Amino acid sequence: MGLVTSELSSTPAKRGRPRSGDVERAILAAASALLFERGLDAMTIEDVAARACVGKASIYRRWSTKGSLALDAFLVDYVAKQPVVDTGVLEDDLREGLTYWATAVVDTSMGRALVGIIAEAQSDRTLAQDWIDRVMAPARERYQVMVEHAIDRGDIPAGSDVDVIMDLLYGAAYHRLLQGHLAIDADFIAQVARMVARGARAGAAIKPSSSLSQSPRH
Amino acid sequence: MGLVTSELSSTPAKRGRPRSGDVERAILAAASALLFERGLDAMTIEDVAARACVGKASIYRRWSTKGSLALDAFLVDYVAKQPVVDTGVLEDDLREGLTYWATAVVDTSMGRALVGIIAEAQSDRTLAQDWIDRVMAPARERYQVMVEHAIDRGDIPAGSDVDVIMDLLYGAAYHRLLQGHLAIDADFIAQVARMVARGARAGAAIKPSSSLSQSPRH
Repeated sequence: MGLVTSELSSTPAKRGRPRSGDVERAILAAASALLFERGLDAMTIEDVAARACVGKASIYRRWSTKGSLALDAFLVDYVAKQPVVDTGVLEDDLREGLTYWATAVVDTSMGRALVGIIAEAQSDRTLAQDWIDRVMAPARERYQVMVEHAIDRGDIPAGSDVDVIMDLLYGAAYHRLLQGHLAIDADFIAQVARMVARGARAGAAIKPSSSLSQSPRH
Repeated sequence: MGLVTSELSSTPAKRGRPRSGDVERAILAAASALLFERGLDAMTIEDVAARACVGKASIYRRWSTKGSLALDAFLVDYVAKQPVVDTGVLEDDLREGLTYWATAVVDTSMGRALVGIIAEAQSDRTLAQDWIDRVMAPARERYQVMVEHAIDRGDIPAGSDVDVIMDLLYGAAYHRLLQGHLAIDADFIAQVARMVARGARAGAAIKPSSSLSQSPRH
């Protein structure tokens, strides 16, 4: 024991950093477990600290609110479950991307956590902005590449707007997830992907104002 | 005073009903004012009772939860602001319908109330079911007529599914309302309406399974 302690103290910088990383990982693992077990409403910083065997101060040093901790804990698994897709056909890319998302969140504890985070974000502006910056922005960057590939292949016209494509694709799915009126099943996913791909192919994803400014006739 | 009482008691059924209607209207008006001023979170039954000058029991006799009262109060104005549209062209119908919705809820107190109700519905199953039955179902009935007219005119093929059309149209808009990442402006509304109309025109709103079962080749 004395030996171990003296070993640790002989290389404080090198061993210190991984240990801080360990604390962070322990907190995230505890938060993730509690979030998925109980949902965001019932998760408390006290419970996370107890499960991670750390003091509350160790958590507040790293995360200022429960919402921001929950978002980080959520993202570890959420991102891992949504790999980049590249099938070579826009409609198939959209269907496959949405299928990964649906598999991760439909009738799962991750889906309940997702819904809890979105509900919380309606009254927590910091969480809402974190959600945009840390979840939506990276996802849109990935889909931007998908849309550019589709334009390069001639699937859809140049100037097609990734934002409206994603808002239709994910908006339809989030609508069913949040309102709960109908199932998010394979048929629905196929319909949504096809609607979006066909609409975009017809040039409908081009912004009205940008199509005006790009057209030499105007 | 005695005269008034005796007058009332002489025609109890006739006067009783309008008076009950008055109480209901007063409660709804008070709830609606508080909901739009403060949002659902900060609205309490106590405050509604005080503003309507009725006892809490008068409210609980009619509405079992704050959520169901808020929904009724919300619906009075929400429905009034969304008239039926029938332009003779599907894309225009979709754009006009969504424009009415956006005008009612984007950057308005009604929009904040809407977001509050949806957030609340994530943890209140009764409210979630009421939302589906009392808001979504009637709206879908109206859009069902719109889609049938579009099929009759030959705008889109028979078998096009109103649910996927509405989930894309409103899903995209609710996505921006709830996530707040981008504006719901006239350009966006025009893009969404065009994407949905073009997708549907290409036959993409037909359910994969129903197209299989309807096709004589399968």
